[in-house]
Amino acid sequence: MKGYWHKEWEQGRRFILKIKPGRRLKESLSQFVAERGIKYAVITSAVGSVSQVHLRGIKAGARLPITEARMNQHRIEGPLELVGLEGNLVPDESGQIDCHLHILVAKSSGEVLGGHLFDAEVFASCEIILSEALVAGIERHPSKSGGVPTIFIQEGEDRP
Amino acid sequence: MKGYWHKEWEQGRRFILKIKPGRRLKESLSQFVAERGIKYAVITSAVGSVSQVHLRGIKAGARLPITEARMNQHRIEGPLELVGLEGNLVPDESGQIDCHLHILVAKSSGEVLGGHLFDAEVFASCEIILSEALVAGIERHPSKSGGVPTIFIQEGEDRP
Amino acid sequence: MKGYWHKEWEQGRRFILKIKPGRRLKESLSQFVAERGIKYAVITSAVGSVSQVHLRGIKAGARLPITEARMNQHRIEGPLELVGLEGNLVPDESGQIDCHLHILVAKSSGEVLGGHLFDAEVFASCEIILSEALVAGIERHPSKSGGVPTIFIQEGEDRP
Repeated sequence: MKGYWHKEWEQGRRFILKIKPGRRLKESLSQFVAERGIKYAVITSAVGSVSQVHLRGIKAGARLPITEARMNQHRIEGPLELVGLEGNLVPDESGQIDCHLHILVAKSSGEVLGGHLFDAEVFASCEIILSEALVAGIERHPSKSGGVPTIFIQEGEDRP
Repeated sequence: MKGYWHKEWEQGRRFILKIKPGRRLKESLSQFVAERGIKYAVITSAVGSVSQVHLRGIKAGARLPITEARMNQHRIEGPLELVGLEGNLVPDESGQIDCHLHILVAKSSGEVLGGHLFDAEVFASCEIILSEALVAGIERHPSKSGGVPTIFIQEGEDRP
Repeated sequence: MKGYWHKEWEQGRRFILKIKPGRRLKESLSQFVAERGIKYAVITSAVGSVSQVHLRGIKAGARLPITEARMNQHRIEGPLELVGLEGNLVPDESGQIDCHLHILVAKSSGEVLGGHLFDAEVFASCEIILSEALVAGIERHPSKSGGVPTIFIQEGEDRP
């Protein structure tokens, strides 16, 4: 049996974004995709600095589904270097574009912290390369077995 | 003298993959590229959660070539947030597609661990964006001077 | 008010680069883009190992602008696994291509360090996937309010 679901997609527009200092990262990304009519997108690259980072990790030994009690939330005041931002933007059941982002930040000691991103504020600058994907039949839904929202891929035709 | 070897490549197909909970990450990727007839590919993005992570680091002060005695292996039970997955898929001498992947995972404390990935198991979900590359004349071979397998690029013509 | 500046760009050439052991990472990238006539580029992926890593972090509690006194510099001898390299290459005011890179490296303990990259030396190998961007009206300048060089995007027309 296959260990995965998959779908082929076509490349849409490509953008460079500079989010303004003091702005919320996810909020600004959501504003951008709404204004440009983007439904699906991927973060290709991100560099900059952030503060007020709110993130989450999963507790060691936790089982599925991931519940609130099986996570730890952290609020890191910073500022910190933004050293990684991975994720995709996919619509939920209501058609609202949902950003699923994981973040990596570095302290002045060089130590790196990371996890599932709730949100963060841009400090000096944040330069993001975003790629639009032209595809259909992919949605983010809460997963009963997983406990967290995850993408569901409607397989069948390979080309969008 | 040039400090690098290089080759231009053409973009092939683009895929979104969701690897199923409980599946091995590298094994599933290998199964996918075999089934789709992909020879060369790059990981563009990955988010999710993993457990049973088996990775490797190089000991401080080590010299080339990298030998077993100059590495440390770790097995982290997790689960952990998958906060980074970088790498490429390139055929080896026998034509077998070899995944060279480095992983970054976050503990519930926010602390991040990482290294060369042997393999990991998908926990709740793993969403990967994969880009196929159309190219020839690149192979992964064990490097005598480096000690580890690395890509060898046959330069000469720039366009595939 | 918009929380961002943005610009659409077109995809140029795509390259795979293998930087030679003992070479400086940023120096080799700069040499490559100069020789190929690349003005704008993005790091899509990077795996390998490095030593002599010189990086910088921002001190907790620091305010804008980011000054020398508000940063900590680190020199890590290594070798270390290169587990992340994010960034873009954009010309400065004189037309010189400037690499803005953030790096993530893993120690043999699995612990990850990172920050703004000054430079690093390639250890066994460094495999980089680089995408050229065809665009105009983007430059890197020192930012008075931010304290560090950052990209400035000339908005107005959406298509390059």
